[in-house]
Amino acid sequence: MKRRAFLTAGAAGAMAAVASPALAQSTPEIRWRLTSSFPKSLDTIYGTAETFARYVREATGGKFEIQTFSAGEIIPGLQALDAVSNGSIEMAHTPTYFYTGKDMTLGLGTGIPFGLNSRLQHSWWHFGGGEAIVNEAMKPFGVYSIPCGNSGTQMGGFFRKEIKSVEDLKGLKFRIGGLGGAVLAKLGVVPQQIAPGDVYPALERGTIDAAEFVGPYDDEKLGLGKVAPYYYYPGWWEGGAMLHLCINAAKWNELTPQYQAIVRQACEAANNWMLAKYDAVNPPALARLVNSGVHLRPFPLDTIDAAQKAATAFYAEVSAKNPLFKKGYDSMLAFRKEGYTWWQAGEYAYDSYMIRMTRG
Amino acid sequence: MKRRAFLTAGAAGAMAAVASPALAQSTPEIRWRLTSSFPKSLDTIYGTAETFARYVREATGGKFEIQTFSAGEIIPGLQALDAVSNGSIEMAHTPTYFYTGKDMTLGLGTGIPFGLNSRLQHSWWHFGGGEAIVNEAMKPFGVYSIPCGNSGTQMGGFFRKEIKSVEDLKGLKFRIGGLGGAVLAKLGVVPQQIAPGDVYPALERGTIDAAEFVGPYDDEKLGLGKVAPYYYYPGWWEGGAMLHLCINAAKWNELTPQYQAIVRQACEAANNWMLAKYDAVNPPALARLVNSGVHLRPFPLDTIDAAQKAATAFYAEVSAKNPLFKKGYDSMLAFRKEGYTWWQAGEYAYDSYMIRMTRG
Repeated sequence: MKRRAFLTAGAAGAMAAVASPALAQSTPEIRWRLTSSFPKSLDTIYGTAETFARYVREATGGKFEIQTFSAGEIIPGLQALDAVSNGSIEMAHTPTYFYTGKDMTLGLGTGIPFGLNSRLQHSWWHFGGGEAIVNEAMKPFGVYSIPCGNSGTQMGGFFRKEIKSVEDLKGLKFRIGGLGGAVLAKLGVVPQQIAPGDVYPALERGTIDAAEFVGPYDDEKLGLGKVAPYYYYPGWWEGGAMLHLCINAAKWNELTPQYQAIVRQACEAANNWMLAKYDAVNPPALARLVNSGVHLRPFPLDTIDAAQKAATAFYAEVSAKNPLFKKGYDSMLAFRKEGYTWWQAGEYAYDSYMIRMTRG
Repeated sequence: MKRRAFLTAGAAGAMAAVASPALAQSTPEIRWRLTSSFPKSLDTIYGTAETFARYVREATGGKFEIQTFSAGEIIPGLQALDAVSNGSIEMAHTPTYFYTGKDMTLGLGTGIPFGLNSRLQHSWWHFGGGEAIVNEAMKPFGVYSIPCGNSGTQMGGFFRKEIKSVEDLKGLKFRIGGLGGAVLAKLGVVPQQIAPGDVYPALERGTIDAAEFVGPYDDEKLGLGKVAPYYYYPGWWEGGAMLHLCINAAKWNELTPQYQAIVRQACEAANNWMLAKYDAVNPPALARLVNSGVHLRPFPLDTIDAAQKAATAFYAEVSAKNPLFKKGYDSMLAFRKEGYTWWQAGEYAYDSYMIRMTRG
């Protein structure tokens, strides 16, 4: 429990800001740049970075100005962390799991397959030790990270053919990245990395058999349901994907405590903007998809069970080699067990009734 | 969809703040007071008001100072809105459903029995029209409200005897307030209003048969499980109770756009602090309660079904008399239907698997 640490730049820092009348120094005019790992077409994810920048501008009366760039405008999407690390840019809006190749611990920042849902991930970060562990993993790169957005549980993607059992996964060419792809590879899936714009033709031609993206609102725009009509759920590899603002640590330390506080609060507010917007736009998008003839299907239980076993084996392998990952994973696991036990009596029991009722 | 309006004090206001170099006026030194409707012993709910005030202090370098008072220190808990309305105090941290006696529409601000869970309530507020409707209901009182906290789904309370069917509710003296009490009264329950400190002796003596409070963390402190060992879930009357910062509208309009932005962002951040803290402290509290001999029980389905029918009838009665409530309720109902349909494929499907897995 680190209640006092939540959003506080350290008690000493906050008190200094209050005690010191050096206001000109507390709110200097500065201009920073932010690169997003996402294209503008993903208007909710990219929009979260824009929203964050707007909040900082409004909270500082325009004195702290952050210019946002979409993936590729000045920095390729997957190189956002490197660019922040080497000081090419002050900050990036990106999921830390893009960088598991550097340290698997960074995957815990976004969340892992069979990890936590959005609320528990947020709670683990602030009150369960997540922040300290992920930022320890960020230290070698000279980066400091703050949560800034969550997608909620994502969808499992569009498939050309029905998946009836775990056998059907063998040899399946599936456009999926990250840890979900690594886990599915253990079940015979052949993970594919394809840029969003190329997914439709690849699925249409049968170069790939399936593709996952985000949730109904973003997925609908790609039109994949026309060529791969089976739309599976849930996206167990992204049960509550948290995004981060990754800041060059030296630059972060140069900020006044007042600006650090504003950035932290703007991140929390932008986090809510993203989740609230998705929760408003995903439901009608799903309804439109189903009305257009897409077949909504739950993954067969044996496929999820097999994936869960494969994921657990994968985490054990990584834990054996990476003590920091092990520390973070064990912490997340304990939080998950206790958290979901309570969830069952609280949120889940309520949602169960509400789903039964609204269906009826 | 009012995407642009989320957390923005109006585009014109924000632009003025950016354009004007009148910084001394944008960040004046001011001192306000805030009354909470809760005692300090509810450290997470009361703590949310303190956290909000701290965030504003940090984001303004101590220039905007908000002093917080617990219920009864200067204003009784249930008179918080009146005190803000008549200008005795600038702001209150309170659930708007305390004031359904003034206008039932205010109940929609916190959420209603069989309403929305925490995430959907937040989304409805910002993107589904909730904000405009509740603040229209606040207008006659000269108050402006901003979401600032959520409890998540609450528990159903402690009962001296097991509830086996809806018949067992008849004549039951239940310490429960608000709309939940009004709904249960239709099923023969006799709702009781008893201050937290008096609940234990009343339950022990059998003056009352049951009492509900908040969730495991707060409930545990009252020790009710020792005298009423059946602990029921879910608290269908509070599926995602949202708290608000209620501000005197004239005072709010005097704030600079910069300070308004800081207050909005601090509210969103404090909202997350409350939810994240509850999600961290409720799970171990529930485990302790169960280990101490409390019997965890789901409400029998027929009791929830009967309550749901009674609630729907109640909302129809109110809708017939109150056009603004009807507008808000219809909006919430449409949001609920679509939202929970998507929930079933997204969050709920993920949570279902995770609960099954962590149990096994």
